[in-house]
Amino acid sequence: MNKKVENMKALFAPESVAVIGASDNPGKLGFHVMKSLTKGGFAGRIIPVNPGSGEIMGLKAFPSITDCDGQIDLAIVALPAKLVPEIFRECAAKGIKGIVLITAGFKEIDDPAGTRLHEEIAGIANEAGIPVIGPNTFGMINLQANLNASFTPEFSLLRKGSIALISQSGGISHLLGFLAMRMDVGFSKIIGLGNRLNVDFAQMVDCLMDDSDTRVIMLYMEGIDDPGKLLETIKKQNSKKPIIINKTGSSAKSDQASRSHTGSMAGRHEIYMGSFSQARILAVDNTETLLDSARALAGCPIPDGPGVAVLSGQAGPGMAGCDVSEAQGLKIVQFTEKTQQKINEHLPPLALRTNPVDMGPAWYDSSAIEEIIRAVMDDENVDGILLFMMFASANADAVKGISDLLEKWAQQKPLISCILSPPGIWDGEIKALEESGSLLNYPTPERAANAMASLWKYRKMQISRADFL
Amino acid sequence: MNKKVENMKALFAPESVAVIGASDNPGKLGFHVMKSLTKGGFAGRIIPVNPGSGEIMGLKAFPSITDCDGQIDLAIVALPAKLVPEIFRECAAKGIKGIVLITAGFKEIDDPAGTRLHEEIAGIANEAGIPVIGPNTFGMINLQANLNASFTPEFSLLRKGSIALISQSGGISHLLGFLAMRMDVGFSKIIGLGNRLNVDFAQMVDCLMDDSDTRVIMLYMEGIDDPGKLLETIKKQNSKKPIIINKTGSSAKSDQASRSHTGSMAGRHEIYMGSFSQARILAVDNTETLLDSARALAGCPIPDGPGVAVLSGQAGPGMAGCDVSEAQGLKIVQFTEKTQQKINEHLPPLALRTNPVDMGPAWYDSSAIEEIIRAVMDDENVDGILLFMMFASANADAVKGISDLLEKWAQQKPLISCILSPPGIWDGEIKALEESGSLLNYPTPERAANAMASLWKYRKMQISRADFL
Repeated sequence: MNKKVENMKALFAPESVAVIGASDNPGKLGFHVMKSLTKGGFAGRIIPVNPGSGEIMGLKAFPSITDCDGQIDLAIVALPAKLVPEIFRECAAKGIKGIVLITAGFKEIDDPAGTRLHEEIAGIANEAGIPVIGPNTFGMINLQANLNASFTPEFSLLRKGSIALISQSGGISHLLGFLAMRMDVGFSKIIGLGNRLNVDFAQMVDCLMDDSDTRVIMLYMEGIDDPGKLLETIKKQNSKKPIIINKTGSSAKSDQASRSHTGSMAGRHEIYMGSFSQARILAVDNTETLLDSARALAGCPIPDGPGVAVLSGQAGPGMAGCDVSEAQGLKIVQFTEKTQQKINEHLPPLALRTNPVDMGPAWYDSSAIEEIIRAVMDDENVDGILLFMMFASANADAVKGISDLLEKWAQQKPLISCILSPPGIWDGEIKALEESGSLLNYPTPERAANAMASLWKYRKMQISRADFL
Repeated sequence: MNKKVENMKALFAPESVAVIGASDNPGKLGFHVMKSLTKGGFAGRIIPVNPGSGEIMGLKAFPSITDCDGQIDLAIVALPAKLVPEIFRECAAKGIKGIVLITAGFKEIDDPAGTRLHEEIAGIANEAGIPVIGPNTFGMINLQANLNASFTPEFSLLRKGSIALISQSGGISHLLGFLAMRMDVGFSKIIGLGNRLNVDFAQMVDCLMDDSDTRVIMLYMEGIDDPGKLLETIKKQNSKKPIIINKTGSSAKSDQASRSHTGSMAGRHEIYMGSFSQARILAVDNTETLLDSARALAGCPIPDGPGVAVLSGQAGPGMAGCDVSEAQGLKIVQFTEKTQQKINEHLPPLALRTNPVDMGPAWYDSSAIEEIIRAVMDDENVDGILLFMMFASANADAVKGISDLLEKWAQQKPLISCILSPPGIWDGEIKALEESGSLLNYPTPERAANAMASLWKYRKMQISRADFL
């Protein structure tokens, strides 16, 4: 298996990619794969393989990879299942290092022939030490390498970032990809595991733990055969990167669906949850929270404690943030005397000034706002800051007023915000603050507080990690 | 008090509005109020009142309303607190029907003078039967009348719709307004109650229950003095429109903040929750769910039962939808034999076809998809449909393929979807389907399922309403 592990790395950084089943016909998946590779900006060699075509999308096509000159690192296969064993043999002979097997129709169909085919190709791949993503997958994407090895060219629209997704569902991969585009969140890699011929969560997590482009790993799981193997891998890897999981199957119906859909044992959701907690995997119960938490873990320093300061331009959002913070295990701390004194200089006695702080009364005095924020940032009791500001016409310069301070301070502690305006007004300034690493912004105070809570939950797991390792 | 109730209606439909404290100086709130009125497209007469100006924003200014010719229906006051009693006397003398009092500095400041002023102006307003929105409010907006009586001109960017918001927090009003703009959700009215001189939740709910532009009422509450009055009003009004509430104060810190911030009793969150349930008010615990639920209640038929069908183009999102559905009290029903037979004609045996239905295997056959959806729509066991489809390049026409069917069917039962694509691809088609009343679309399957659950929770409350009325 050493060769397979070695080849796992090559999977993401091929110099040449063959598309076996490449096509000029938009009705074929091989067309869309070719489009993904050519439009995605992949700098290496792209080799369409199709016995019936001389040229596909302007590239010379070969009747088979055997006929193709030079080394091929990665093969993407989109041909009928019954042809796949022969293709795999050719791949092994050609010295191909990795395969993305888009084709469906193996173990998951109600036909012993499918299972036989599955076992046959597994044998070939394992003997040759070739890691296989799939079968029955949409593919995988390595954004940093501009490698879109999937049948969805639009994944190349994603921003490059440091979040990786390993998913058992193509639908959820597309969902999270499109959500990320709409929220301008960047990814490093997306891997659709499909029916996991010889690459399962454990092998992929192991690989991404050593991937310098990836800071945070998101998992979407329905059910797997060997959860123990995943736990073992994480233990071996010393839990060195945050892993967040969203596992469906908490309801009777979806658990049942999962068993039949993935061909895996699936089963009791609670047992999985226990294992995740033991392995220091942060479990969340929906896709929105999965992405929100991954963003925070990828973009914020991890707080040392649960103590947050809630600073808001208007009282209501601050209260909403407090409710979620406390419910999710954060603490609305008491400020040091020094901090409190500074705040009291700028806010009248009846204002909310002890945490949560309603900075409303100082709203028009940007130097006062700045001094309050600075005092709270420096407060030793404060592990993280939640900052909520709603646009008002009379205060259109509010974000500009604090930008310098926030940029200089650059998140020595996590600063998570909900700064919201009508579309187009503050969006540019907020994006600049995000890009300078000054803060991360969320659409509601509750989602901001939840993201902060995920940071602390992860930190708490690290602290208690000794029990596990 | 009858005159005040009568005048409540005039509040939202004035023919003439005076801005007392109007200004040409962007540093003054009176400037922003003038901008809101003039730029918001208000068709009635706008009268700037300011002793020092001859003209403001091209409109003739008057030194006082007493000097102004003709009837004035509504006055928006943005002057220092100490001047307000005299202004109120002038308003009463002039026969003004309603006041929006933006000014702060009454009961909420730590000064007996503030409380005295508060009582003085309450006396004047009550004697004259003038309903007052505020003090300490950003104002109110009636979108159907193009009346933006607030200091935030950008509220006029909101789409006209049938959701009203009554809020105790200006910050939350702005938050929900901006979220709605970004989600393209329409509002009928937004009312910032402020410190509730003589118009509280009860009076405003009473008024909006009879407002033909409003189908659903959202409340944001921190704490009120007399929750019993609100319950009584809803009882009297026969719970005839859905009311959804988000109350903050579930945490110790925010409850404490609320008591001091709003000057109200606030106190035990659980007691409030019990009252809301008794009054058939649907309580949700965050602003996102508040808006998501209001959209569904305003835009979908109310289901007769908890039975949902989950139809998806990919299995994963279907499972995510099932998990939330069951957790929130919906039932993933068994189809009738007739429906199941129809589905079986189009999907292979090992596909998920018993509910949740994974339509993936029929993905390229739009007539098959159409027949499956139609069979499920007509199934007597199904009270509502959750439809999840993720874009794929190979299936770019999927939405077009089912649009006709969905438009024809036009939500005889609620149809809530998460149909998601990279920005710009399906957005136009989804918007058209929403506008034709065919479905409501949400950004994730979980939020779609949650919205469906809110419909059923509301329906269940209606069924058990007999206990309350």
